[in-house]
Amino acid sequence: MNSPIDFYFDFSSPYGYLAAQKIEALAARYGRGVTWRPMLLGAAFKATGAAPLPTIPLKGEYAKRDFLRSARFYDVPFRIPDPFPISTLHACRAFYAAPAEKQVPLAKVLFKAYFVDNVNIGEADNVLKIAATLGLKPDLNDQALKDKTRAEVDAAVARGVFGSPYIVVDGEPFWGMDRFEQLERWLRGPF
Amino acid sequence: MNSPIDFYFDFSSPYGYLAAQKIEALAARYGRGVTWRPMLLGAAFKATGAAPLPTIPLKGEYAKRDFLRSARFYDVPFRIPDPFPISTLHACRAFYAAPAEKQVPLAKVLFKAYFVDNVNIGEADNVLKIAATLGLKPDLNDQALKDKTRAEVDAAVARGVFGSPYIVVDGEPFWGMDRFEQLERWLRGPF
Repeated sequence: MNSPIDFYFDFSSPYGYLAAQKIEALAARYGRGVTWRPMLLGAAFKATGAAPLPTIPLKGEYAKRDFLRSARFYDVPFRIPDPFPISTLHACRAFYAAPAEKQVPLAKVLFKAYFVDNVNIGEADNVLKIAATLGLKPDLNDQALKDKTRAEVDAAVARGVFGSPYIVVDGEPFWGMDRFEQLERWLRGPF
Repeated sequence: MNSPIDFYFDFSSPYGYLAAQKIEALAARYGRGVTWRPMLLGAAFKATGAAPLPTIPLKGEYAKRDFLRSARFYDVPFRIPDPFPISTLHACRAFYAAPAEKQVPLAKVLFKAYFVDNVNIGEADNVLKIAATLGLKPDLNDQALKDKTRAEVDAAVARGVFGSPYIVVDGEPFWGMDRFEQLERWLRGPF
């Protein structure tokens, strides 16, 4: 039995959202499961000194165009939400509060809410409403949940996760939706 | 007749080097030529606040692995040179000093010298030796050449070029070797 793929992402990351639409089918073609691991890009950016794409001169303008073009390329419904980007702390906590079997369904509806329906999932109230559609009522201010979420995010950064999406298969890291081709070849066998 | 593709790159950029091995064949499949436009990433980084990849925590370590893996993926001979990265001002000047028909051949031998043979093309003497193999004897300190090179680099940044490789086809920009798939689809028709 092959070990699952680790899929790190931030709920505010367009490329993370695009990857989320494709990762399970890709993994399944090679008999793999996927472990979804939301993290907070802000924590990674503290380690790397990076800044959110829209704030960067030249690159920010390019990024907006590339988000939209990439979504068309991969045939995924997408809009640039407003506001963008946002803190996804509440979304991240809601994910880790959920029972295992509801985590991935919750991640999918959170992504869709933000990148398709333009719901600001940076706001706790919106996260709670979305969670409720799956019968979930997380206490987003619970200290144990805060600690667990922080530990997950710290563990991601400690493992070297600096961007979104960031995928690890058998110890080999792949950063970006645009590494899916290399990831797929790796799943056939290391090269 | 379709207009040529603009191919911006820095001679010290591994992804620029990889792209240089593939861009002409790709363009030719769609009846396009390629205009090679070396620039200096340092000038772009001043505009964006970016730093050379190897200096960035987490991302730098990943980048080294990704350079090597990407070279294997694209089946291109490659090593991480030492020193890396370097200033490619002299290489850039030598390119713009060359007559049009020798610019691309010179770019190719400069790239090969650095990324295959580990020759430090940051040093003017090495650039001159390489240029001499093509019968070229540029005066790298000529003021008109300095001005021309600077103007080319400034024009690139003014156009929005912030990374390497950066390709523009009919006004549409593509950053990165990993956008070649989107570039190829665009050459079949905008999407």
